[in-house]
Amino acid sequence: MSTYRHNIPETGKPRIVIIGGGFGGLNFLKRLRNNDYQVVLFDRYNYHTFQPLLYQVATAGLEPDSVAGPLRKMIRKKDDWHFRMLRVDRVDPEQQEIHTAAGRLHYDYLVIATGSKMNYFNNASIARNAYPLKQVTHALDLRHTIFQQFERLEILARKKGKIRENLNFVVVGAGPTGVEICGALAELKKHVLPKDYPELDIGCMHIYLVEGLGQVLPAMSEASGKKAQQYLERFGVKVILNCMTESYDGKTVQLSNGEKITANTLVWAAGVQPNLPRGIPADYTGKSGLRVNIYNQVSNADGKSILENIFAIGDAAFLQTEKYEQGLPGLAPVAIQQGKHLAKNMIRAARGKSLKPFHYVNKGVMATIGRNKAVADLPMNIRFSGLAGWTTWMLVHLLYLVGFRNKTIVFTNWFWNYVTYDRGIRLIIRPSPKSRDLISRELMNEMKTDNE
Amino acid sequence: MSTYRHNIPETGKPRIVIIGGGFGGLNFLKRLRNNDYQVVLFDRYNYHTFQPLLYQVATAGLEPDSVAGPLRKMIRKKDDWHFRMLRVDRVDPEQQEIHTAAGRLHYDYLVIATGSKMNYFNNASIARNAYPLKQVTHALDLRHTIFQQFERLEILARKKGKIRENLNFVVVGAGPTGVEICGALAELKKHVLPKDYPELDIGCMHIYLVEGLGQVLPAMSEASGKKAQQYLERFGVKVILNCMTESYDGKTVQLSNGEKITANTLVWAAGVQPNLPRGIPADYTGKSGLRVNIYNQVSNADGKSILENIFAIGDAAFLQTEKYEQGLPGLAPVAIQQGKHLAKNMIRAARGKSLKPFHYVNKGVMATIGRNKAVADLPMNIRFSGLAGWTTWMLVHLLYLVGFRNKTIVFTNWFWNYVTYDRGIRLIIRPSPKSRDLISRELMNEMKTDNE
Repeated sequence: MSTYRHNIPETGKPRIVIIGGGFGGLNFLKRLRNNDYQVVLFDRYNYHTFQPLLYQVATAGLEPDSVAGPLRKMIRKKDDWHFRMLRVDRVDPEQQEIHTAAGRLHYDYLVIATGSKMNYFNNASIARNAYPLKQVTHALDLRHTIFQQFERLEILARKKGKIRENLNFVVVGAGPTGVEICGALAELKKHVLPKDYPELDIGCMHIYLVEGLGQVLPAMSEASGKKAQQYLERFGVKVILNCMTESYDGKTVQLSNGEKITANTLVWAAGVQPNLPRGIPADYTGKSGLRVNIYNQVSNADGKSILENIFAIGDAAFLQTEKYEQGLPGLAPVAIQQGKHLAKNMIRAARGKSLKPFHYVNKGVMATIGRNKAVADLPMNIRFSGLAGWTTWMLVHLLYLVGFRNKTIVFTNWFWNYVTYDRGIRLIIRPSPKSRDLISRELMNEMKTDNE
Repeated sequence: MSTYRHNIPETGKPRIVIIGGGFGGLNFLKRLRNNDYQVVLFDRYNYHTFQPLLYQVATAGLEPDSVAGPLRKMIRKKDDWHFRMLRVDRVDPEQQEIHTAAGRLHYDYLVIATGSKMNYFNNASIARNAYPLKQVTHALDLRHTIFQQFERLEILARKKGKIRENLNFVVVGAGPTGVEICGALAELKKHVLPKDYPELDIGCMHIYLVEGLGQVLPAMSEASGKKAQQYLERFGVKVILNCMTESYDGKTVQLSNGEKITANTLVWAAGVQPNLPRGIPADYTGKSGLRVNIYNQVSNADGKSILENIFAIGDAAFLQTEKYEQGLPGLAPVAIQQGKHLAKNMIRAARGKSLKPFHYVNKGVMATIGRNKAVADLPMNIRFSGLAGWTTWMLVHLLYLVGFRNKTIVFTNWFWNYVTYDRGIRLIIRPSPKSRDLISRELMNEMKTDNE
């Protein structure tokens, strides 16, 4: 380990290190309006990703700039706020330091907001061949794959049988992401692909949605699940419930019910796991993230040993409450609320006041299934669907998008797509071999030379 | 060579094969409104690229979808028009066939609209280390490199000397692309970077524009060149004229005047060469493309041997006229006019009428240098610059963009960037390792199996 330390200035203020600029980290920063702390944000990317709309990037409805916001724009609001585009590899609670490729940094408070990553449940064939949908790069990969596939099939179009099989899509996991990507694929099938590829028999394209549990949208009400399934089936999506996906070699999907489906593309939306830095002892790790108490402080199972200056929020945190014995759900609103609440607590702490406990307010869950169709479960058993649900879904998503620019661009695109039944951006822009990764080994080497 | 032939249906109509969906190919298609021909368009990409605005993609002013338009949208206008996303490797004038990785195709008429590619003049060190700016992928590479570099330097910011040198940019070639990228970099330096990277001394960032000839914008009038140079220098760009770039090892630029410049990024905008498929005999190749007569038919030097059914337009063509002894300039308007003219001639031919000769109408040349500044040389020695030039530049570029969607999105972005002095999309989205290239070897192998 290099002895290099980060070049963050010592300003005398207590230092808050935040790992991750997702919903949790970003909303923590938004609400932390005081000047009592030095803030250092670390992220692998220089942008925040609005994950709920990634499926639209994957299906050519939106461009990356619509769902991503530059993190530095948030950081530059305060003089003593800093950003470093680096992955945090390790946390050292003893030394109160984080470790990165560019050296270590001391923290007074640490906010772990590292979110989640794909969980393939140790299935190597799926991990190798499936398309995930968690980052902007995943969405672009999936988009390029979808459209390249059609270009390729049109070149091969003589071989009818072969094409029929290759046109299939399998989506595993019927949570909101799985349902929404199925809806978007069905829309492409209905409105865009037949016009773009008249030589292919797009009617042969089948979209399968495979879910291990007994209903579509298993985290929502049975009524909404049924409704969503109805919408999907009316759209031509084949829903397979109570069924596990056993393997996928890139061509054939083997299901636990014995069925085999030939498909060129499998989208994996069946599970995530917390994306934690190393270094926090195992006692502090719960079922789906770092155990936290009601102040979002990392603590062990019986809640007696508390790492008082280490907080975890969002998907990285595992908070059990009376109502949520399995932990709070892995939803954006949980991360947003925890981020905002923690910021308020940090402001209170700076003023010598005691921390306030966190209470999650369930504002409802929604999923959209293509044009004019959505389901929403709101608190107090209010449910709605169809056009009303869809309008609400749109407004809520526009509202939560990062900035005014993103809102404008997304709205323009949606309006365009809605009116024309088209997708403006079915572009296959493959990466060029010349792109260099400047922050990595090269940097580490420079750091080493620097210390010799 | 596989014996596979393309699966383009035989409809009894004469077949026009177009290679390339750039300005020439696209405008040929736009104007070819009759149904007398079968049309097959080949392109490596599934989109048209509006190259004059690539520099804005590179400097985070626009996203790729703004400067690219899906080619299939154009193709789907007619029943017997077809698109294949394939590179054409070779033309066989004897057999009237084109060769691709997926087999051969017979043509009755061939339109070679393959444009140009970078010309490094056999300088290996520059070819390896410079950033070109000719394709969307180039623009994205350059953007990622620019912003990754600043992220990296902020991590290293302790080492002042090192940073000062690494902040430099060298742009080689003072044509419109070179001038415009310098202007855009200068704008980033002035309005965006100091706010985003407060820990870096952005004042140390230098932008060099190196030109082999004696003036900025050598293809424009001396007055406009002087004006542009003035604008650039007022913006802090260091203009070096009458100077060749001898080598670049990725760190140091060696100039022919003996000077060395340390720079992390060198943008090569110093020359292009025609991007021709193989197979046309050398007699038909001129100084900068396939020799064509006034009907855009490929012909040899004395104009006596004519390939009557092979046309070349745009940067792929070399058309000498009395006024343009060195051939028509490599400008978008030339390609657009040739494409439209050729389409009209093809319609005439279908009606049994004789071909009409092509006359290039010079509508002027323009270049913009950042906010509110541009120079324009119009016919009849009309010149203007400053805000008037800039407004004209904007309107003309909006007008020529492919579709209404692109116009709307570009306008929204420009308006946003103009009002806020900001760049919405300084996102570093690196390619993911999982992206697969589906149309290539794999396809060729399938084709082979198919014929065994």
